[in-house]
Amino acid sequence: MSAMGNGTLVLLRHGESEWNALNLFTGWVDVQLTEKGMAEGRRAGELLAEHDVLPDVVYTSLLRRAINTAALALDAADRHWIPVVRDRRLNERHYGALQGKDKAQIRDEYGDEQFMLWRRSYDIPPPPIAPGDPYDQEGDPRYAAGSVPRTECLQDVVSRMVPYWETTISRELRAGKTVLIAAHGNSLRALVKHLDGISDAAIAGLNIPTGVPAIYRFDEELRPLGTLAYLDPEAAAAGAAAVAGQGGK
Amino acid sequence: MSAMGNGTLVLLRHGESEWNALNLFTGWVDVQLTEKGMAEGRRAGELLAEHDVLPDVVYTSLLRRAINTAALALDAADRHWIPVVRDRRLNERHYGALQGKDKAQIRDEYGDEQFMLWRRSYDIPPPPIAPGDPYDQEGDPRYAAGSVPRTECLQDVVSRMVPYWETTISRELRAGKTVLIAAHGNSLRALVKHLDGISDAAIAGLNIPTGVPAIYRFDEELRPLGTLAYLDPEAAAAGAAAVAGQGGK
Repeated sequence: MSAMGNGTLVLLRHGESEWNALNLFTGWVDVQLTEKGMAEGRRAGELLAEHDVLPDVVYTSLLRRAINTAALALDAADRHWIPVVRDRRLNERHYGALQGKDKAQIRDEYGDEQFMLWRRSYDIPPPPIAPGDPYDQEGDPRYAAGSVPRTECLQDVVSRMVPYWETTISRELRAGKTVLIAAHGNSLRALVKHLDGISDAAIAGLNIPTGVPAIYRFDEELRPLGTLAYLDPEAAAAGAAAVAGQGGK
Repeated sequence: MSAMGNGTLVLLRHGESEWNALNLFTGWVDVQLTEKGMAEGRRAGELLAEHDVLPDVVYTSLLRRAINTAALALDAADRHWIPVVRDRRLNERHYGALQGKDKAQIRDEYGDEQFMLWRRSYDIPPPPIAPGDPYDQEGDPRYAAGSVPRTECLQDVVSRMVPYWETTISRELRAGKTVLIAAHGNSLRALVKHLDGISDAAIAGLNIPTGVPAIYRFDEELRPLGTLAYLDPEAAAAGAAAVAGQGGK
């Protein structure tokens, strides 16, 4: 924690999940990390320790791939004891009817253009999930009744993520803390879009790699000083390319 | 969460740690779980799920053997997403100058009587840890400067645990929640002593096994209905006997 001025924000996308490995759309389905994903979590913590970026508080989604990545990283950085806050507003984008579907199969079935619209357009959500679909989260005790989306586009994620940033996370940074957000590709893209003022069109090109911590520092008005800086830029570049290529053969 | 009346308290002592396995006094030294300890954590979560004892909130110490046991148990019970509170008042008893020492060696060196006094007397603490001892926690960023004990007897643990129970944990139970406390042999013994009204002399005979969840239910005045009930009584009896026998040859 710095004695004066604004704190440091650390973004960490969860490590590889079982459905990343199977190339399935995941969204709010609460899948486990793979062994590789757990190793990514521990490696992220080693990077935090090596760079002396030591979180004072951690925010996660309500999904175990983010919760467990944070736990493994913080244990490796000897910061497992810091306060934890978990909130549904940090969840991955709800992928609607695509949840549980194979990415390559959807690409084959609907074509490249529709596939990329669903994955990367700012305001076009996938079709809503049907009630009773095995991958619908309605009725899950962690969510209030009626609060589970049927589908979301990135704009919907911005609409829940940015108010949470404004009311909650940004206050920790104004108090000078180092804040870790362990979350998901699209909840982190929503935040980066907001912080870097990326246009609705240009955000399609932003891919966040799994398991590589990235930091923002801020000026007095809590404007980012420079863009997101990955603690392992080489691994981040390779990881972002892998994300961009998903759904390919 | 029950709709009316007081909630359910679940006590869980962390699984086997590396220093349990080595038979060393641990106290506030922040050692890892062994593979066996991790399996105990997962098994504890399976027991919670099998008995439909599903925590609404979890309290842990600031030590990773309790934090990680809770995380593994809650993941296995599909309750990994509940709120977490961590507090130093749930830490293990500080073992003073004995921290890092071999239990059998201390028993040989000081004799059975002194050994059992340090382990099980209510109000006789081990000698204080020396400043600069490698197992002194003074200066650890998780503790405020000057707040780390030099040694503790069980009475000292009661003195920090019971006010935390009164001001904080009991309120969650009065609100009807199922509360998991993942902590340590002596912080849990301190709480059980208080709840069951066990005498200073009789508490010496109470041993809490690792990794077996145990529950209390309460009357309207938050008095326990019956004594602590282990979800796997057979495993608990075997575990308690193993704890009682520590320091033997």
